[in-house]
Amino acid sequence: MKIFSSQILFESKKENHLIDFSSQVEAELKKSKLKEGIVFLFAVGSTGALTTIEFEPGLQKDFPEFLDRIIPKGKYQHDLTWHDGNGHSHVRASLLKPDLFIPFSEGKLLTGTWQQIVFVESDNKPRNRKIEVKIMGE
Amino acid sequence: MKIFSSQILFESKKENHLIDFSSQVEAELKKSKLKEGIVFLFAVGSTGALTTIEFEPGLQKDFPEFLDRIIPKGKYQHDLTWHDGNGHSHVRASLLKPDLFIPFSEGKLLTGTWQQIVFVESDNKPRNRKIEVKIMGE
Amino acid sequence: MKIFSSQILFESKKENHLIDFSSQVEAELKKSKLKEGIVFLFAVGSTGALTTIEFEPGLQKDFPEFLDRIIPKGKYQHDLTWHDGNGHSHVRASLLKPDLFIPFSEGKLLTGTWQQIVFVESDNKPRNRKIEVKIMGE
Repeated sequence: MKIFSSQILFESKKENHLIDFSSQVEAELKKSKLKEGIVFLFAVGSTGALTTIEFEPGLQKDFPEFLDRIIPKGKYQHDLTWHDGNGHSHVRASLLKPDLFIPFSEGKLLTGTWQQIVFVESDNKPRNRKIEVKIMGE
Repeated sequence: MKIFSSQILFESKKENHLIDFSSQVEAELKKSKLKEGIVFLFAVGSTGALTTIEFEPGLQKDFPEFLDRIIPKGKYQHDLTWHDGNGHSHVRASLLKPDLFIPFSEGKLLTGTWQQIVFVESDNKPRNRKIEVKIMGE
Repeated sequence: MKIFSSQILFESKKENHLIDFSSQVEAELKKSKLKEGIVFLFAVGSTGALTTIEFEPGLQKDFPEFLDRIIPKGKYQHDLTWHDGNGHSHVRASLLKPDLFIPFSEGKLLTGTWQQIVFVESDNKPRNRKIEVKIMGE
């Protein structure tokens, strides 16, 4: 078994921006030349998270609306300390967690046809984002 | 270190069906002949997810009731596009995420006594399900 | 690639106790002598979970308050079976999940500056807790 390390970088446009970066993950997998194993993804920072979703326009609204509803903006102890108004962003990111792995075989990701890999921007402003990528396999 | 690849297949009976597939994971681990490492599990598809739970009858109702409460059936943008009435299913699966790993030592899973490995069927109908299994270790 | 196995032990003080054990993870990473790879963490038991968070006093209140709000104490089927009053604890732990991985390079964790590794005590009493640690890399 070998390990391949890289990073995926992108810029989020606004709070609740869902970014489908599946094709960038596939590109890193191709670079690694590994055929059988797992891609490990980690979102650096405490106001963004990773998951999978069917990346169609409806769910791109539904999923953030769900987060807005169960973790609304408002008064959080975090804001009283830092006054940056993003207490809800931290709670959302800690709920969803920053780590996600995707297995692959024959050099192809084993996600479903309607299952894309997404970054969930939970911060209240555009951010430059970094995903640490480790691919383990043979 | 080596990698062992396989799949676990089963059929869910209905929405909110929690399926304890711990014994199938143990069977794959035995087949791998690995003694020290990690079992990586990935639920293929965007309306099912993995987690651990104490698999007793009470929690088999409590956990889905929690999901019903915070992500109720109803109007989602996803449904307006696809008219399949499962917008809530996608939101639930993206919240819980499809990936889960379980470490093992001496050929045995390191889960707690009351901690079983479950698939959470979030779709609104029975489905044939596939879990991709990768076991890494020595 | 090699695998290093160990455990991290600590005692939680009360329900909703967030424990930052980042420095213990760093200590295990140092012991492993591995420079490039991934630390895999698994919380044994069905009433505790792992995530990352900015570990400052405000969020140490905000995150548990969020859990209290969406999964309140009260009547759960689990309690009717076991009468231990911790049905909500199980639901919270299954939502957050027990597994978390953190990549590292040059012997250092790749978490953000404001992103600590935490155990979330969801049980309704102090507990002795065990985190299984597997470090894979080279």
